Amino acid sequence: MPSPIPVAILGATGSVGQRFISLLDNHPWFKVVALAASDRSVGQKYSQATRWILNEPMPDYAKDMIVVPATVEAAQAKIVFSALHNEIAKDLEPQFARAGMAVCSNASSYRRDEDVPLLLPEINADHIHLVTQQRKNKNYSGCIVTNPNCTSTGLTIALKALDDAFGVKKVFAVSLQALSGAGYPGVASLDIADNVIPNIKGEEEKVEWEPRKMLGKLDNGKIALADIQFSAHTTRVAVTDGHLVCASVELASHAQADVQTAEAILRDFSPVESARELPSSPRPVIQVREEADRPQPRLDRLTGNGMTTVVGRIRRDPILDLKFVVLSHNTIRGAAGGSIYNAELLVSENLL
Amino acid sequence: MPSPIPVAILGATGSVGQRFISLLDNHPWFKVVALAASDRSVGQKYSQATRWILNEPMPDYAKDMIVVPATVEAAQAKIVFSALHNEIAKDLEPQFARAGMAVCSNASSYRRDEDVPLLLPEINADHIHLVTQQRKNKNYSGCIVTNPNCTSTGLTIALKALDDAFGVKKVFAVSLQALSGAGYPGVASLDIADNVIPNIKGEEEKVEWEPRKMLGKLDNGKIALADIQFSAHTTRVAVTDGHLVCASVELASHAQADVQTAEAILRDFSPVESARELPSSPRPVIQVREEADRPQPRLDRLTGNGMTTVVGRIRRDPILDLKFVVLSHNTIRGAAGGSIYNAELLVSENLL
Amino acid sequence: MPSPIPVAILGATGSVGQRFISLLDNHPWFKVVALAASDRSVGQKYSQATRWILNEPMPDYAKDMIVVPATVEAAQAKIVFSALHNEIAKDLEPQFARAGMAVCSNASSYRRDEDVPLLLPEINADHIHLVTQQRKNKNYSGCIVTNPNCTSTGLTIALKALDDAFGVKKVFAVSLQALSGAGYPGVASLDIADNVIPNIKGEEEKVEWEPRKMLGKLDNGKIALADIQFSAHTTRVAVTDGHLVCASVELASHAQADVQTAEAILRDFSPVESARELPSSPRPVIQVREEADRPQPRLDRLTGNGMTTVVGRIRRDPILDLKFVVLSHNTIRGAAGGSIYNAELLVSENLL
Amino acid sequence: MPSPIPVAILGATGSVGQRFISLLDNHPWFKVVALAASDRSVGQKYSQATRWILNEPMPDYAKDMIVVPATVEAAQAKIVFSALHNEIAKDLEPQFARAGMAVCSNASSYRRDEDVPLLLPEINADHIHLVTQQRKNKNYSGCIVTNPNCTSTGLTIALKALDDAFGVKKVFAVSLQALSGAGYPGVASLDIADNVIPNIKGEEEKVEWEPRKMLGKLDNGKIALADIQFSAHTTRVAVTDGHLVCASVELASHAQADVQTAEAILRDFSPVESARELPSSPRPVIQVREEADRPQPRLDRLTGNGMTTVVGRIRRDPILDLKFVVLSHNTIRGAAGGSIYNAELLVSENLL
Repeated sequence: MPSPIPVAILGATGSVGQRFISLLDNHPWFKVVALAASDRSVGQKYSQATRWILNEPMPDYAKDMIVVPATVEAAQAKIVFSALHNEIAKDLEPQFARAGMAVCSNASSYRRDEDVPLLLPEINADHIHLVTQQRKNKNYSGCIVTNPNCTSTGLTIALKALDDAFGVKKVFAVSLQALSGAGYPGVASLDIADNVIPNIKGEEEKVEWEPRKMLGKLDNGKIALADIQFSAHTTRVAVTDGHLVCASVELASHAQADVQTAEAILRDFSPVESARELPSSPRPVIQVREEADRPQPRLDRLTGNGMTTVVGRIRRDPILDLKFVVLSHNTIRGAAGGSIYNAELLVSENLL
Repeated sequence: MPSPIPVAILGATGSVGQRFISLLDNHPWFKVVALAASDRSVGQKYSQATRWILNEPMPDYAKDMIVVPATVEAAQAKIVFSALHNEIAKDLEPQFARAGMAVCSNASSYRRDEDVPLLLPEINADHIHLVTQQRKNKNYSGCIVTNPNCTSTGLTIALKALDDAFGVKKVFAVSLQALSGAGYPGVASLDIADNVIPNIKGEEEKVEWEPRKMLGKLDNGKIALADIQFSAHTTRVAVTDGHLVCASVELASHAQADVQTAEAILRDFSPVESARELPSSPRPVIQVREEADRPQPRLDRLTGNGMTTVVGRIRRDPILDLKFVVLSHNTIRGAAGGSIYNAELLVSENLL
Repeated sequence: MPSPIPVAILGATGSVGQRFISLLDNHPWFKVVALAASDRSVGQKYSQATRWILNEPMPDYAKDMIVVPATVEAAQAKIVFSALHNEIAKDLEPQFARAGMAVCSNASSYRRDEDVPLLLPEINADHIHLVTQQRKNKNYSGCIVTNPNCTSTGLTIALKALDDAFGVKKVFAVSLQALSGAGYPGVASLDIADNVIPNIKGEEEKVEWEPRKMLGKLDNGKIALADIQFSAHTTRVAVTDGHLVCASVELASHAQADVQTAEAILRDFSPVESARELPSSPRPVIQVREEADRPQPRLDRLTGNGMTTVVGRIRRDPILDLKFVVLSHNTIRGAAGGSIYNAELLVSENLL
Repeated sequence: MPSPIPVAILGATGSVGQRFISLLDNHPWFKVVALAASDRSVGQKYSQATRWILNEPMPDYAKDMIVVPATVEAAQAKIVFSALHNEIAKDLEPQFARAGMAVCSNASSYRRDEDVPLLLPEINADHIHLVTQQRKNKNYSGCIVTNPNCTSTGLTIALKALDDAFGVKKVFAVSLQALSGAGYPGVASLDIADNVIPNIKGEEEKVEWEPRKMLGKLDNGKIALADIQFSAHTTRVAVTDGHLVCASVELASHAQADVQTAEAILRDFSPVESARELPSSPRPVIQVREEADRPQPRLDRLTGNGMTTVVGRIRRDPILDLKFVVLSHNTIRGAAGGSIYNAELLVSENLL
């Protein structure tokens, strides 16, 4: 049994930071050695600095750790998980990469960079090899690896299965997103009580672009964006965790995409071998529910420990080809769990 | 001042029945003379028979009325408002029409009949003349007039404005519907707490068909269904009142449908004259909100006393032409208020 | 018809400020001439400066008013309604009182001052005469008049009726308070979704003290605190508006306080004449509900336009004498509506 | 390793039945051999017969079990867990006891019987010996053992610690109870959305009586009810799981009950040895939270896998001696988990 790999968490007191701390409790490969946060928290015990908002109790290992500043000196580790706000991530993440650390980031700052992998290992584990290019381009001894926006996550995984089988051409997607996606304090209770907020700033642009990179082909060190058109509406609903997306898709092979075939394709979807047996690999990658009213956030978000993508209501679309509903846990598969899965892939591919 | 027209309410104890009672309090033309409900309630005072679920207090006039059976003999009136369940409405409504009463129904039983008007007076007041045909066909001295499904309502009103101006070809619609749409007791609290239900039985079929009849042309005593393709996903969210729909539309005149023009078209939409000055006429018919995050159910559902359709977030759609969000109060404009508006049109058109 | 009295609102953009603006729309005596708020908002139109959070639409009169600073010079009026935070109120309110304005304040800063009336006109209208003393003591040409904490409000009104009839000795009170009581943004949605917060900072002290002043006797220019013991637990629940209190009371005249007598006493409670016919006088002051499960916030908070105190579940207490449940609309009777009612009393008592 | 003890679940499809199924997954001593429910479900696979409402997925073992009728013949086992409605439990449970099975019941039907133990093993494990008496009296070869009402559960555990140390004399208790306590479908969403229901039928009587039996002394085969006065208000709030109780208590040893001592007494409370090392024994029995705003249902209900009683806000009461807030998971410690813990005690005491 090898010694555990030291990891740090940047932005450890926020809602995604808390999820990192929870998911890394008893991780078989990683050991948390530093919790970094803003000046307000530095020097305090983690349990004092943090307003814990997860249902699960705070893990014991974190309680007495002293919060350190988010600097290269203070947060030394092999892998750094970033739950930083985008503007701060933009400044800090390259410093860690330059200092030799592998930054697995949940921030959006570098997702669009040509040499930064935007990863869902189930579907595009090969994109991780962009880091070789990245190291050359930017003179990093470490690297930056990103996971997508939480709403893109489940949708893109489902689309990958359909794209492999039938070719996806167009996608309409309307999201009903959970409160935890907005961080803490995030949405004011008076804004969402007995209400829906029909917009999430900056989200639609991400959902219309990120899947195209993830479904694109890596060729000669570059990713060709997938030739798929997206139209997204994003909304916020009064749910704690779990993003639901209603999707309608047009496929290249119209004729073959009957509902039964599509269900089978989704149910049987299997990741490439390199992503299949990692500690955080979803089991199954996609679960297909057959009930008329599933998936539902409260009942299905913890499927496969929150790493599984749950799909239901697959049916013919009167305009395009297929309609379905997809659910993904936004702070597990769609945030902290995704970053950890990416880190595991880096380790297993010897890219640390 | 003419003497008021006597009206009855069938299904008076349910959630839509309650809304009828509330909206008919102090109506300038109508006087409620009979409240009919199922055997369980017959013979009791209305205030005893009913579990009142509206925010507004029960009107005084209703409290001591004795609930009568939903029969032609017991519920004598010129106009009968039906908040009956569909199977019961199917049996009972023709009996009232045969007995000379004008049935203004919120049930779906007869919406698809060729000679039954499916009315939103703002947009298709002329369809009311189907009742002449209906009386001949069915030997009614009264008639049956229907209002659409609550989710179709706001969407179709917005589409009418766009259709007149640009020609609507295709519509994607995803609804986030309120709890009151399911009646009482309706949705169990454990099913919707911290949750979304991504299906409403039978609803998508209605949303994909009803607008085509309402947007159709009346010609020679028949309605030609509008040649528009619809794809609908319907979901239930934890909101008391107010159905929200995210819509993407393809238009015939792509080029002209820029956002500013579309906003102006929607804002300036005016009903035909016959529907404009009735007591329940919405003022305005459509309100366009310019904020980035409106309409919202809690804040906007009572616009124009719950009769106005509120539209916001009008923007380009990357696949079709326009995207927008539309909100309508489901038990006012989308149910009881709509039926009352229909009844007013019958009166003003001398069709009682 | 006399010309309207000019009034100003301090803290006009916040949640209580919004309620002032809504309730003063079409007020028969008062005309809003100034809306004051913090620097962030000054110079903007009210409709642009404000994130409106009430169900009712923003009144037209306010939309284009330009927000002014909360200074004596900028917010000139006869009456000034204060929805300021306590620390700011502490500084600013005396300036307005010195400048000759009558400050009707919802802040807690001066509630405990010996010469400042803490008013619920239904029950202690005579306490308003403290302002004569106050003017002498503090050299004010105007004055400061306060209304109590929103949770104390309904409870104290119900207690007054019981105290007059039976003498109240001890009170246990547990509140279930609405979100709007915490202002905006106030409570984070992640803190209250699927949750209760079993504490509200500083609230229990207020509920244990304020009723004693309001139920005290004014004698010789001083108020003798009522000799009643209070024990309070205060909690926050996921309700938009309406504070509910479960109360158990011990009475001096144990024997007479049977449930029927107490119900009658509460139902028939009538304010002193000076408080009875003002524009905001609650009608009725107390409504007694006889159903087993009322009052409820959503169904009963708007009783008497939100000014009525609603009491239900009056029953024997196994330890003390009586138990009951009391509901009051926290931002109407318990805040802005209460301040306006106080201002009306000042006018009718010629104390401006 | 001994072979597992066969157990059956009566009322297996309801909300408490589901919790039994979930908690018995991988139980170290018990193996579920029969799932019984009403005629509607009999003959179907459990996964088809049940509308699953728990957050945790349905355990695999249950999915394909065929639901049997709730008869002695069909539901053969050593231990029978009863999640039956009270009226049905009243009839059926004695049949199972007569047939030699140990009925561990969550129903209230027999809680008040003199020879039926009402058990919280942490605090009154010795009461289990009533079954010897019961077998004689009723000629049972099996027995009936009950757990208390979910609201009494946490409160009584906290009171036991205080009673041992200081002697409890009087208790005021106001509950804020979760939706799952009402079963499924239970509370209608329209009744609780944006609302509180200030009454739960029959609940206050239970909370005012059951703790007296559990805190009573077993002497000579009989329990002397504890001489403590209770006053309870019970309310329903929009929370999925977790009952919160605000309590004020009078103690015999006033002087000694300072806050620090009381906290220590609660924190250090330890069950009698026989209840300490069972599979479901709570660890810790009581957790004391020191934050100003805990316990909270969403954050604390799963403490100790939902078996721990969480107490916070211990402070002086201005009328009695101490105030505090107590939280208990109503369907785990307060229902299914409690019954299982009772069954484990029966086994370890050799009373099967």
